[in-house]
Amino acid sequence: MISLAVTPLTPEAFAPFGEVLDTRGDPILINAGFARRHNDLCTVDVAPEGGATNVSIFVAKARTLPLLITMMERHPLGSQAFMPLQDQPWLAVVCIDPADPSTFRAFACTGRQGVNYARDVWHFPLVTFADGDRFMVVDRKGPGNNLEERFLPQDRHLTVSR
Amino acid sequence: MISLAVTPLTPEAFAPFGEVLDTRGDPILINAGFARRHNDLCTVDVAPEGGATNVSIFVAKARTLPLLITMMERHPLGSQAFMPLQDQPWLAVVCIDPADPSTFRAFACTGRQGVNYARDVWHFPLVTFADGDRFMVVDRKGPGNNLEERFLPQDRHLTVSR
Repeated sequence: MISLAVTPLTPEAFAPFGEVLDTRGDPILINAGFARRHNDLCTVDVAPEGGATNVSIFVAKARTLPLLITMMERHPLGSQAFMPLQDQPWLAVVCIDPADPSTFRAFACTGRQGVNYARDVWHFPLVTFADGDRFMVVDRKGPGNNLEERFLPQDRHLTVSR
Repeated sequence: MISLAVTPLTPEAFAPFGEVLDTRGDPILINAGFARRHNDLCTVDVAPEGGATNVSIFVAKARTLPLLITMMERHPLGSQAFMPLQDQPWLAVVCIDPADPSTFRAFACTGRQGVNYARDVWHFPLVTFADGDRFMVVDRKGPGNNLEERFLPQDRHLTVSR
């Protein structure tokens, strides 16, 4: 069993896997000053093979740490953005190569940070710590198989802990 | 001055203006039972004139009731979805025809309801009641002018109240 420590989510650390959705950048003032717009936070990449943008809400069941990782998944036909709808912490677990444990990262996301997994980026499904946590998800709908799952050999299972 | 009362947001009442984003419908069970997906909640309509999907976060400044409506806006090149990132009430004010006060509606949205304004639907900018309320917005980026504002003649100003 390989162990993996959680590290804070930053745009720089997450760059190989996609983008961070937050309000750190400079906003545009709109609506006669009644709103600040943090614009164009991620690349919604859903066009291949006749795809279109799919907006959905995921309602999660809590997981606990240490978390056992025995599989990873990716979406070969599009990006997938997750934004929490409550200010509660959650985890984004990703890797470059499921066969290489050294490429795994577990990011601690605040309740004010979302992520956009780029197309083809391996990730573990949504990890939250409270039942019923909701996420707005922007990904792809359309023809073709957009889900690839990879099960890890038993000697390469990982446990994620703080 | 014309007065307009706030009514609860329901998908049926909002249908002439767009869609409601919530978790009322039947979900799909995914992630080995760790998530329920309320799928494909709205029509992201951003394609005309070379547009693409824009994901952004709006941070709002509080407004107060009674709210004075002296203008409305619409987006001729795309839809615009708003989803609150905290469980706090907000308002969606819309109309069919800015020149006809009888076509105005003010919807009280819960903090667990978003809306997607269909293309060309007249609406008032975001109305929230707490400074710093955040919304995830899915709309259009691309060439062309996607904002039309219509100022109401003074005898057709509206006040929105509970």
